[in-house]
Amino acid sequence: MDDQRTTTFSQIRRTNETRWLVILVIGILTAVTACLIDMCIETICEYKFDLLQHWMNQCIRDDCIIVPYLAWVGMNAGAVLAGSALVAYVAPVAAASGIPVIKCYLNGVKVPEVVRFKTLLVKAVGVVLSVVGGLAVGKEGPMIHCGSVIAAGVSQGKSTTFRKDLGVFKDFREDHEKRDFVSAGAAAGVAAAFGAPVGGVLFSLEEGASFWNQSLTWRIFFCSTISAFSLSMILSAFHGHAGELSFSGLVNFGEFEDVQWNIMELPIYIVMGATGGLLGAIFNYVNFRLTVFRIRYLYRRWTKVVEAVMVAVVTASVAFLMIDVSTDCRPHMDEFKDNSLQFNCSDGRYSALGQIWFQTPEASVRSLFHQPEGTWSAATLGGFFVVYFFLSCWTYGLSVSSGVFIPTLLVGAVWGRLLGVGVRAIFPTATWVNPGKFALLGAAATLGGVVRMTLSLSVILIEATRNITFALPIMIALTVAKWVGDFFSEGLYDIHLQLAGVPFLGWEAPSKSSHISAREVMGYPVITFRMVENVGNIIDVLASCPHNGFPVVDTPEEQSSEEHCFGRYRGIILRWQLIVLLQYKMFHSSAEGSCARNLGIKNFRDAYPRYPTIQQVHVSVHEREYSMDLRPYMNSSAYTVSHTASLPRIFKLFRALGLRHLVVVNSSNMVVGIVTRKDLARYRTTSHYGRLSMEELHISHG
Amino acid sequence: MDDQRTTTFSQIRRTNETRWLVILVIGILTAVTACLIDMCIETICEYKFDLLQHWMNQCIRDDCIIVPYLAWVGMNAGAVLAGSALVAYVAPVAAASGIPVIKCYLNGVKVPEVVRFKTLLVKAVGVVLSVVGGLAVGKEGPMIHCGSVIAAGVSQGKSTTFRKDLGVFKDFREDHEKRDFVSAGAAAGVAAAFGAPVGGVLFSLEEGASFWNQSLTWRIFFCSTISAFSLSMILSAFHGHAGELSFSGLVNFGEFEDVQWNIMELPIYIVMGATGGLLGAIFNYVNFRLTVFRIRYLYRRWTKVVEAVMVAVVTASVAFLMIDVSTDCRPHMDEFKDNSLQFNCSDGRYSALGQIWFQTPEASVRSLFHQPEGTWSAATLGGFFVVYFFLSCWTYGLSVSSGVFIPTLLVGAVWGRLLGVGVRAIFPTATWVNPGKFALLGAAATLGGVVRMTLSLSVILIEATRNITFALPIMIALTVAKWVGDFFSEGLYDIHLQLAGVPFLGWEAPSKSSHISAREVMGYPVITFRMVENVGNIIDVLASCPHNGFPVVDTPEEQSSEEHCFGRYRGIILRWQLIVLLQYKMFHSSAEGSCARNLGIKNFRDAYPRYPTIQQVHVSVHEREYSMDLRPYMNSSAYTVSHTASLPRIFKLFRALGLRHLVVVNSSNMVVGIVTRKDLARYRTTSHYGRLSMEELHISHG
Repeated sequence: MDDQRTTTFSQIRRTNETRWLVILVIGILTAVTACLIDMCIETICEYKFDLLQHWMNQCIRDDCIIVPYLAWVGMNAGAVLAGSALVAYVAPVAAASGIPVIKCYLNGVKVPEVVRFKTLLVKAVGVVLSVVGGLAVGKEGPMIHCGSVIAAGVSQGKSTTFRKDLGVFKDFREDHEKRDFVSAGAAAGVAAAFGAPVGGVLFSLEEGASFWNQSLTWRIFFCSTISAFSLSMILSAFHGHAGELSFSGLVNFGEFEDVQWNIMELPIYIVMGATGGLLGAIFNYVNFRLTVFRIRYLYRRWTKVVEAVMVAVVTASVAFLMIDVSTDCRPHMDEFKDNSLQFNCSDGRYSALGQIWFQTPEASVRSLFHQPEGTWSAATLGGFFVVYFFLSCWTYGLSVSSGVFIPTLLVGAVWGRLLGVGVRAIFPTATWVNPGKFALLGAAATLGGVVRMTLSLSVILIEATRNITFALPIMIALTVAKWVGDFFSEGLYDIHLQLAGVPFLGWEAPSKSSHISAREVMGYPVITFRMVENVGNIIDVLASCPHNGFPVVDTPEEQSSEEHCFGRYRGIILRWQLIVLLQYKMFHSSAEGSCARNLGIKNFRDAYPRYPTIQQVHVSVHEREYSMDLRPYMNSSAYTVSHTASLPRIFKLFRALGLRHLVVVNSSNMVVGIVTRKDLARYRTTSHYGRLSMEELHISHG
Repeated sequence: MDDQRTTTFSQIRRTNETRWLVILVIGILTAVTACLIDMCIETICEYKFDLLQHWMNQCIRDDCIIVPYLAWVGMNAGAVLAGSALVAYVAPVAAASGIPVIKCYLNGVKVPEVVRFKTLLVKAVGVVLSVVGGLAVGKEGPMIHCGSVIAAGVSQGKSTTFRKDLGVFKDFREDHEKRDFVSAGAAAGVAAAFGAPVGGVLFSLEEGASFWNQSLTWRIFFCSTISAFSLSMILSAFHGHAGELSFSGLVNFGEFEDVQWNIMELPIYIVMGATGGLLGAIFNYVNFRLTVFRIRYLYRRWTKVVEAVMVAVVTASVAFLMIDVSTDCRPHMDEFKDNSLQFNCSDGRYSALGQIWFQTPEASVRSLFHQPEGTWSAATLGGFFVVYFFLSCWTYGLSVSSGVFIPTLLVGAVWGRLLGVGVRAIFPTATWVNPGKFALLGAAATLGGVVRMTLSLSVILIEATRNITFALPIMIALTVAKWVGDFFSEGLYDIHLQLAGVPFLGWEAPSKSSHISAREVMGYPVITFRMVENVGNIIDVLASCPHNGFPVVDTPEEQSSEEHCFGRYRGIILRWQLIVLLQYKMFHSSAEGSCARNLGIKNFRDAYPRYPTIQQVHVSVHEREYSMDLRPYMNSSAYTVSHTASLPRIFKLFRALGLRHLVVVNSSNMVVGIVTRKDLARYRTTSHYGRLSMEELHISHG
């Protein structure tokens, strides 16, 4: 494999230039995709709500109220039926937000089909259908997933879905390169979803990176900036402000202007953070139970679709019912004429609840942040909070393309604003009481309590509200929310990863694990190959055992008798290398003879990433007696670790260097075992109501 | 050492809480220090310029023009004399910006006295004197250094300068912990200097981090945010806007409002980036030559002071001369009444050059960004550009506390604005021509060309101008500037590090180094200890050889005859561990007997970070015959590497895991050599006029 490293400088430079080109294309395409999703959602939703509103206003007079209700339920159920069927039958990996699977991918865990073009398509169309279907979902998570798929597709220059290979960017057909591009794509997705380029970079780092690489980070930043600017260029044209790059209408959650905070308010924000953490823990617990139920009973495709449609029907019904019984009517003001629903209210007034329900969740968050005081009564906010909390909790994990950011922010904004109403009642004349401020902090705390992200989330919120003033309160609320939440349970994404049995490695080794040594972690016996190995033996081993890495050993005479040893370590060779070698018949009739030619990097790269299985390699019975010299291909400088090394030390090596397996040797450099990601992922610290404990999980091997 | 790891969870939690407390204190103290520096500079400079202005305006009438000139020169020379003497005689490490030494520190290179309290004092007082002395310097670099020293001091709870040990935070008396706090302090310094909390985090990551750690980054972010907010709280009170946290007068380079850019302007920005890169390369080359000259001829303390005073005199003289001969007079406008100098101009007019010179460089940058078109003539800008370019180049590296950010930004802003004048001449009526915009881009490109930072710099500039609209142009200009600059030479800080012979490890292994194996990189013979070692031998080795890490080996019979081997590897023990063991007399008369007690982590930590030398340890002649059992103390799971491992692989291990030495073993786990940072730092890729080459540097061992 070493000829890869002896490329000349001019090649390195050319590859580097190509890399920037790819990054540029990823940024632009992600923005275009995000724009399409955005425009579809906006146009269709506007049309839908206009129609319903008109109908309802008319029917309250004509007493045909059941008709708009049925229309509403029908529209939503139809859209969700289409969306969930698409997900369940075409690309199940496109379900939910996509952030957990991208996390896995960047962590080094292979999830099938996660970056396929068909997944992108289902994800994008699916999220439009989910939002149009009135579910408690956002489009942000799916946009991040879309960015990642685009990155993978563009950088590889080929698509498995289309069976098309453009034959370009072959240098990037390699796990590490591909993963780097995918992290840039994820950042571009965040940038497009929230208009937060810096937040995008931090998101990628927080979720994906382990080894900090300056030039990679700079490329990620470039990608997310390109994405954010392309998006604002297209969208400002769409909204009729062509050329105005900083058109404030594009700021996701609206610009916060002239809202100040005082150091005396900090205790309130700390309490809000704690509340958010608590709510997040409840959310996660309920969703955890629900997911377990789903895994156990709703594993059939059609049951998943039925459940999704059911949620759509319930959501629409509850919304309708709430608007119908609500008596919270407000006088018209100029600003929100567009989605005002008169319904049960007297002339010149509109239903306050109708205003929240008759727009997309994202627009509702913006309203809650920026509408003047007194737009909603305490009862309206309280009722909506309870209903929406459970709806969004029920919705996450359905077989639809859906993000959890927006519904969680909405729940938080509602209780934050409710708190604002309460504080106003205590301080009727205080100028510092601003309901939008409380809504923002409540939203941040709740989202932090659910997903337990801190760094990227705070920057995303700062960028999405174009206001750095609230950096400190937001950070404090997020920190407290994380502390309180972690006391009870793990983050939502981690819960889902754990339920899926993914060998995901956290940031640090579980605490109190330093007494565990490599000897206890490692797996054995180890299947090894000799440096010159019999072809038949290789084929039999590959066919019978699923391992990916095999140590290559020799056997010094004087130590052959040692027990529990599998020969002296000389290097490691990977399954796919062996398969390619067999394919090219790189073996020889005698053990001493060597092949005239050597395989180059190109031969190995052509098959990436879907190498044939051992069953697809044809070797005659005669050839089985041949010998293969593994020395030119094995990685003789792969890292190894002593059998006395502690778990934290092994963990650090895996995380920092992105390893998949690590050979364990004894003090004579004899192979005694092998550690894989799964071996490490078995050990994790779990927090259970404040008592930290370390448990050894039993992850299914397969 | 393992009892450190078996601390209980409650201890871990308490340590974590203490860590947050320390971070809070660091953030606040850094902000307070920055405020003090800021207020001193502002107050003194205002007074100085008022006085001079008044004097000059009067003397132009009374024909005593020599008097204000001498006063000006005298004031500047006096301040610089004090400042440079302080640096040269009290704390030489406080010279220049401090960023290179902090880079070293975070990279893992020990620089003596870099985080001492006395350095902080000299740095802070020194930078006030330099700016007051009218040198072409900024206060930003020193502020970053100050933050780092504060972090080191607070986290260790003791000061060597004061010989005072508060006896708190003993858990943090360890290299890794201390370094983490210092990186938070540096981030707080950036946040305070530029009002850029996110930029501060990215600065710390770009300059310091190698292994990305989520919770550490979050603490760094918290520290920088606390610092930024404390600063704006104190400063807005100082400026009479108490409580207004987002008071826009505090935005470092003024707020950019309503300035747009168009995609058609991008070619201009690319050309500007290239110009900045070129200017940066010239700046670095001239400064490189100058530094070599200084190292060779100006190494005496008094010569350093004399040179600094000379620069101060020349700067004042040139400024005076320029104002005197300039005929660029402008009519008064209300906004800049405060520093208008009439001088040679007719009544109601003021000298355009006087306006730039009669304020701090930082204020001049702000003026260049925001003054309306036509404030300065092309001749004024051109002349000032040439003069200031060479002045700032001459100034950097003097024995004064000085930052290079502001002067470089000023140089860039001047030519950027000059370009704006030119573009206006071509497009007399175009609305997109805005001189402030060009000044901003020119400043970014020049600074990027000099220091070659990209990621943190772009975020710092975004935050310091409170404008995200220019993110893309700034990024493009910085990228192009870096590319063009790297074509000619290295960044300014790297040049200085290289001249100082620091074994600094870059981000990535030099390209084209994969054919170099551990065997060529490593040093040998290796001095090893046996697992049970003779005390006299240990003392002799420690006294005669300067190494810090010693492999511990045993000698299996059958392989004792192998050549070039130094025994079978069993672990590694560090110099300071051996010294502490000798101090506590952890040895025994017979080789087989073992000590009744074991030393705990506390015994080792108490002496940190200044362990006694081997000469300070007293062992009787009798005791020299005793044996010491190293097994309980040696690190038996330290990483090793095979002698066939390639340089990039070793490099990655050093960077990712922050190693200082790495034992090289052969295929039988026999020690054959040892690799240190210096061994690795010898190899580096240098770019020389576009031809990349790898050279092996000869770094002095000592």
